[in-house]
Amino acid sequence: MDLITLTGYLAGTLTTVSFIPQVLRTWKLRETKDFSLIMLLLFAAGMLLWTAYGIWINSFPIIAANVITFGLVLFLVGMKIRYQ
Amino acid sequence: MDLITLTGYLAGTLTTVSFIPQVLRTWKLRETKDFSLIMLLLFAAGMLLWTAYGIWINSFPIIAANVITFGLVLFLVGMKIRYQ
Repeated sequence: MDLITLTGYLAGTLTTVSFIPQVLRTWKLRETKDFSLIMLLLFAAGMLLWTAYGIWINSFPIIAANVITFGLVLFLVGMKIRYQ
Repeated sequence: MDLITLTGYLAGTLTTVSFIPQVLRTWKLRETKDFSLIMLLLFAAGMLLWTAYGIWINSFPIIAANVITFGLVLFLVGMKIRYQ
C-alpha cells in the first residue's frame, strides 16, 4: 500500500473512530440537548454524497470511512430524536 | 465542472455547512456536556490527515471541505474546554 492510500485510511480511521466515544457518551448520558439536529442531518446527507464521490473516484478509504460514520451518525440522529 | 467534482463539492458543502448550526447552537447555549472531547480531538486530527490526502490525490473538494470544517471543529474544541 502506498503512503497516499495509507494516509487516506488513517484519516478515515480517525474521523470514523472519533464517533465511537461520542456514541458511547450519548448512550450513557441519554442526553442530546447540546447537539444540533440540523447539523446531524446535513452531516449524514453529506456523507452519503461523499460515498458516491468515493465510488466515482475509486477511493476505498473515502467509501469505507463514510459508510461506517454514516451508521454511527444515524444512531446519534435516533438518540437526538428520542432524547431531545 | 464534471458531475464527479460537483458531487464532491456538494458533499463537502453539506458536511462543512452542517457544523455552522452546531457552532451557533453551542455559542448560544454555552453548553458542551453532551459532546465527547475525545471525539472532537480525533475528528480534528482526522481532518488534518484528510487534507493531506486531498492534496496528494489532487482533490480540491476534499481539501476545501476539511480545512474549513477543521476551523469550525476547533471552535467546538475551544468551547468544550471552556464550558464543559
